[in-house]
Amino acid sequence: MAVYTHISDDALQQFIAAYDIGALLSFKGIAEGVENTNYMVHTEGGTFILTLYEKRVREEDLPFFLTLMEHLAGAGLSCPLPVHDRQGEVLREISGRPAALITFLEGVSVNRPGTQHCAALGASLAEFHLAGAGFDLSRANSLSVKGWRDLYQSCGGAIDTITGGLTELIENELGFLETRWPSDLPRGIIHADLFPDNVFFLKDQVSGIIDFYFACEDMLSYDLAICLNAWCFESDASFNITKSQLLLGRYSQKRALTGAEFDALPLLARGAALRFLLTRVYDWLHTDEGVMVNRHDPMVFVRKLRFHQRVESAREYGIDAPR
Amino acid sequence: MAVYTHISDDALQQFIAAYDIGALLSFKGIAEGVENTNYMVHTEGGTFILTLYEKRVREEDLPFFLTLMEHLAGAGLSCPLPVHDRQGEVLREISGRPAALITFLEGVSVNRPGTQHCAALGASLAEFHLAGAGFDLSRANSLSVKGWRDLYQSCGGAIDTITGGLTELIENELGFLETRWPSDLPRGIIHADLFPDNVFFLKDQVSGIIDFYFACEDMLSYDLAICLNAWCFESDASFNITKSQLLLGRYSQKRALTGAEFDALPLLARGAALRFLLTRVYDWLHTDEGVMVNRHDPMVFVRKLRFHQRVESAREYGIDAPR
Repeated sequence: MAVYTHISDDALQQFIAAYDIGALLSFKGIAEGVENTNYMVHTEGGTFILTLYEKRVREEDLPFFLTLMEHLAGAGLSCPLPVHDRQGEVLREISGRPAALITFLEGVSVNRPGTQHCAALGASLAEFHLAGAGFDLSRANSLSVKGWRDLYQSCGGAIDTITGGLTELIENELGFLETRWPSDLPRGIIHADLFPDNVFFLKDQVSGIIDFYFACEDMLSYDLAICLNAWCFESDASFNITKSQLLLGRYSQKRALTGAEFDALPLLARGAALRFLLTRVYDWLHTDEGVMVNRHDPMVFVRKLRFHQRVESAREYGIDAPR
Repeated sequence: MAVYTHISDDALQQFIAAYDIGALLSFKGIAEGVENTNYMVHTEGGTFILTLYEKRVREEDLPFFLTLMEHLAGAGLSCPLPVHDRQGEVLREISGRPAALITFLEGVSVNRPGTQHCAALGASLAEFHLAGAGFDLSRANSLSVKGWRDLYQSCGGAIDTITGGLTELIENELGFLETRWPSDLPRGIIHADLFPDNVFFLKDQVSGIIDFYFACEDMLSYDLAICLNAWCFESDASFNITKSQLLLGRYSQKRALTGAEFDALPLLARGAALRFLLTRVYDWLHTDEGVMVNRHDPMVFVRKLRFHQRVESAREYGIDAPR
């Protein structure tokens, strides 16, 4: 949520001149995105977001992300569209960082999603999965089950400083998931980070999905499991079955779940809870006190994980098994 | 340069509903302004800046600043205009902070002003001073000569940790200025912080002046002295007489300097250099290492001060004495 790299007016004037979007009118650094620097740019041709890719994003992944946005927008999804310069390029450079200019989407992300937002999100997620079909670049999910153990080990012995017993909880869950993680469910392009701050709404309709920098090829139903964790718990970490029923129900209307996906959902939800627990634990232990304001509390995901551990069937998420 | 106070979508929807500017379309926290939190807000009615006033701004001064913007805009100056809600109010509250919605101005602030920018700025500063005439609220300049000694004393004995001899330089200059500071020059509303980041340009013309939160009633020529320091030195701290000649020349075409103002200019320029040296020294000594990236180097103003100390007549700024 910061501007890591500053750009000068001269550098931006020169950068903008390579596109057919008219002259620069104004630009402001915006507090959006955890990984990258973003500027909101007005030109005679419209409003754009200029993203400078910082070191946490692997440069070799950028063509995947940018081409994916173009593919999804081409398939009718409302998402940012990279703008081509006169040479046809979308990935360029400014202030020593790789950078892309993308279209600006109106919309507001909701701090506390209501049932209407969960319903709309379910439909949009299915549209996202369907739109991803036929995309021919690939990127493995580095934050799936294989990556979790690395992340866990890189936290060393410090995890119990957050709360007593956390190491044991993670160790046991990791062992449980490693032996049972499915490998035969329908796959495709997933967003992999579809939290409320990455979804824009206008009048309770989804107006845009943003931030594709965790997108990868994985099980489609794992994306749904992430959304269960990200959208269907209240701020006191209690599960809201009305929200999950609407999210899963509206999703299924556009893309029916297979029986195997339905059966795997509680396990996938445990995996998703563990994945965000692990990155939050990692960030918690590796963030300086000074910038602590940006840390997310890992304990929220302990409570979500414990909830999913008690779920015996996806029926408890409010939906029936597919016939 | 940070978003100190976060606002929720719900709070902003409710805030916006009090104005006749249509529904909220989007909002982004922007990295602008050192003292306050700013959001760029799109509604069906246009683009606005929402400013939340943080603790460094005294709440009792806010009516002065907001009424001044209205007065100046009414007099034809291109500056942000506070928007009235349906009750006629401009100063309201959101997320526990006093807040105002103001119109958005297109334009780009220049990192390295050229001669053409200094010329345009000179004319705009004169227009600003003329537009301020008849404004009937008043606010003393808390950062004029009387405030400097307080600031100096609040730095305690730590000043020489920045560079050896700095305490002596400041002590001597303060004594010199305190006995000679003029009290009989033409007065009016001054901006008092007209650095390049507070001036927007479009095609080398001034498109807007922003950030009125140091504005006050003081000697008009002191504002000019601040601009000499802020606009007419190169990045190696060498003085550019072409820039000052254009700035002062274009200013004088719109508002002629009196003989006393001309004579006082080198002294006022020393005062302005000391004022920014002192606040930078204060911030340098009172800023945590962790956020050091936001600190401005005080030494730049030591070099500017030493330049003005050697100036014997305003002729050395490139202009002739008024006839």
